[in-house]
Amino acid sequence: MVHVESDYCVVGAGCAGATAALRIFQAGHTVALIEARDRVGGRVWTQEHSGIPIDYGGQWIGLGQERAYALVKELDIRTYPTWTKGHNVFVMSGKVRKYQGEIPISLLNLDLALRQFTKWSDEVPLEAPWTTKRAKKWDSMTVATWINSSAKSTTARKMLTALMNGINTSDPGEISMLFALFQTKSCGGINAMFSSEIQSDRISGGAQLIPQEIAEKLGSSVHLNSPVKRIAQDAKNVVVSSDAVTVRTKRVIVAVPPSISSRITYEPVLPADRAMLVQRLPAGTVVKCTAIYNEPFWRGDGMSGQSIDLDSLVGSTYDGSPPSGLGTLNAFAFGHKVRQLARLPSADRKSIFIRQLVKIFGPKASTPVDLVEHNWAEEEWTRGCYMAHWPPGVITEYGCALWDPIGRIHWAGTETSTAFNGSIEGAVRSGERAASEVMNAEN
Amino acid sequence: MVHVESDYCVVGAGCAGATAALRIFQAGHTVALIEARDRVGGRVWTQEHSGIPIDYGGQWIGLGQERAYALVKELDIRTYPTWTKGHNVFVMSGKVRKYQGEIPISLLNLDLALRQFTKWSDEVPLEAPWTTKRAKKWDSMTVATWINSSAKSTTARKMLTALMNGINTSDPGEISMLFALFQTKSCGGINAMFSSEIQSDRISGGAQLIPQEIAEKLGSSVHLNSPVKRIAQDAKNVVVSSDAVTVRTKRVIVAVPPSISSRITYEPVLPADRAMLVQRLPAGTVVKCTAIYNEPFWRGDGMSGQSIDLDSLVGSTYDGSPPSGLGTLNAFAFGHKVRQLARLPSADRKSIFIRQLVKIFGPKASTPVDLVEHNWAEEEWTRGCYMAHWPPGVITEYGCALWDPIGRIHWAGTETSTAFNGSIEGAVRSGERAASEVMNAEN
Repeated sequence: MVHVESDYCVVGAGCAGATAALRIFQAGHTVALIEARDRVGGRVWTQEHSGIPIDYGGQWIGLGQERAYALVKELDIRTYPTWTKGHNVFVMSGKVRKYQGEIPISLLNLDLALRQFTKWSDEVPLEAPWTTKRAKKWDSMTVATWINSSAKSTTARKMLTALMNGINTSDPGEISMLFALFQTKSCGGINAMFSSEIQSDRISGGAQLIPQEIAEKLGSSVHLNSPVKRIAQDAKNVVVSSDAVTVRTKRVIVAVPPSISSRITYEPVLPADRAMLVQRLPAGTVVKCTAIYNEPFWRGDGMSGQSIDLDSLVGSTYDGSPPSGLGTLNAFAFGHKVRQLARLPSADRKSIFIRQLVKIFGPKASTPVDLVEHNWAEEEWTRGCYMAHWPPGVITEYGCALWDPIGRIHWAGTETSTAFNGSIEGAVRSGERAASEVMNAEN
Repeated sequence: MVHVESDYCVVGAGCAGATAALRIFQAGHTVALIEARDRVGGRVWTQEHSGIPIDYGGQWIGLGQERAYALVKELDIRTYPTWTKGHNVFVMSGKVRKYQGEIPISLLNLDLALRQFTKWSDEVPLEAPWTTKRAKKWDSMTVATWINSSAKSTTARKMLTALMNGINTSDPGEISMLFALFQTKSCGGINAMFSSEIQSDRISGGAQLIPQEIAEKLGSSVHLNSPVKRIAQDAKNVVVSSDAVTVRTKRVIVAVPPSISSRITYEPVLPADRAMLVQRLPAGTVVKCTAIYNEPFWRGDGMSGQSIDLDSLVGSTYDGSPPSGLGTLNAFAFGHKVRQLARLPSADRKSIFIRQLVKIFGPKASTPVDLVEHNWAEEEWTRGCYMAHWPPGVITEYGCALWDPIGRIHWAGTETSTAFNGSIEGAVRSGERAASEVMNAEN
């Protein structure tokens, strides 16, 4: 058992926790960064396959994500543009159509529904969504209820469902309308969500480089393989304990997903509102499959790699290739479709992914060099991705407990961000916000 | 650290866990019952105030609750009838009305809505609610959405809200319509919920006597003050560990609320479906306040003690008196009203309770001998009452994971009961079901 004294302590070395620790360290304080796993990065994780880095989790940064760009630049990490040239593909009722640029919303008679969504979304104050004038109404209905009442055709309903799936990985039937309005606004609005600009750039070497480069700077202040079991605070200090390391510090930032934070024993026990909140913020479900090919053959065929399929288990694809050499296609399944896929033997699931890629990109897609898939729900220290969502009735009741410190305990993580909630940018911003909080606190 | 070898182990000594342990013990097996707190009983807890037993949590048994009656009889515990004679009171828009018998539903134009509810409820197979024909539709809407579309007047909406509050302590805006249909049916149907027959009897000496008498029989097999930290299973055994005791056993029954079960570390890690489910079953919120008087004065005034107030923070009251001597009134607040009350200083909250009792029962209610209140959300090993509910979109996706064993780990608790879900009876039945499961398992 290692005993450490440090000015501050951060629990969780994902992008949020790593950024918080970096900012504290740069300000001249000592900081201990404690991580449950044998790696840093949390929901950002890069592994090499066929000689190229494959991002299992978060992989894009884009329009308006200033803090992530600043951090990447500061860490001397290079980025490269996501490939977006060529036709996109839209599959509806089994019919494959090609189109240029943004999704042809007007064809789907969605203009009115999306205008309503934008208008409502504009009314949500991001810093306190529970104060929205119609908060109670929107928070007591699911997005499915809104879709059923606003979209006139089956196709329009499917399109809105696919859109919501892609934004937060959950099914419209399980999330609060207020959450959808908040989260979409926090990411730049529904129109930004339809554009590829919110995911315009990739990280050379993989997104996990961000927390890895930070960990490099922090050196021996990073403690891996140390699930935190207990956080005990009194009037002067906090003691953060895992089986491997104990840290005595002034303040701690807990930067793990909300439901994971409930696995820690707090002394004194947390107030009811916080305990009730973290019972109520479940993570979404997504399976990301990456098919690796000898070259990005679809580009030669005039295709961007982007597709949306309203009926398939595999909802969307993107070009996920490295800057040069091999080509990769990312294929995503969301929400209840993840469970359908997860119940299948791995070989059957892989066949489904390949069949979908062949449907969109032709027979050349049938023989990938490798096929890599990851289901974040199976990861003990994550249990779902991209992030937690708000079921109905939660945030209007417990919202304040989302980011309010409790004594010497502060909270970070993309779920606590009012900008780009659910993305790497949200994580980075939450880390910087929490770092400021602890350093500006009185004692 | 105590090391124990026993045939079976039960985690959690609430009514579910205690019953399971008793049935195993009676069948001639050894069993270890491990409890986090310094007492048995879980959400059933009796403390003496002014010389009489006051139930902080579950306190009633009633119509159809055969297993609880059988258990009570077997344990030589006496019951006595809940006082129900006299006028009930119904307060609407500040106007206090007296009535006899059941709530005058017909006055509220609720017949149609309640008939629809009953019809839908009849369609839900209790053993597998996710297979209901319209499961997807009902599970993707909140009860609030149903109330808004089915109740024509503000008063009717308030009445349905009050009814749902009383049944499951949650707000209609946070629960799945499928859950309301399931839970209500599991308790005997909506009409039973309106009658006082489902809470017709009380336990002499307090409801905690049930688990206490069981613990007495189990003797040294009960280990208190032992929060279980880890459950590790292999092909032959399970090892259940707390800081104080380690049990090696064939099978374990985990009989704690779903979200509390996620605080245990499982080896190997639990499958994704179970981990995702327990992120999604939050407990409701209720504050129960018991006012103790020198005598049950309201009886002399021709009143039953029962009231419903559609507008007050304090939604309902009941006569909670012991068989003779002092009189007590139980007053309940539910859902979001609990948070409003919890944020007040204790003295202000008590004033609100007393003001409500005076409004219903007259000036004699203004001077109780004592006023006892308990907020279960503040209890570390409970975090909410009566029980967990299903938010929208949860049970159609993860329902099977609610009670399916995982290797040598079995699940009990009122949340896992298909009959009287949420009540003491549900807990008892789940304990007996889980005990049978482990004893009938192959090895």
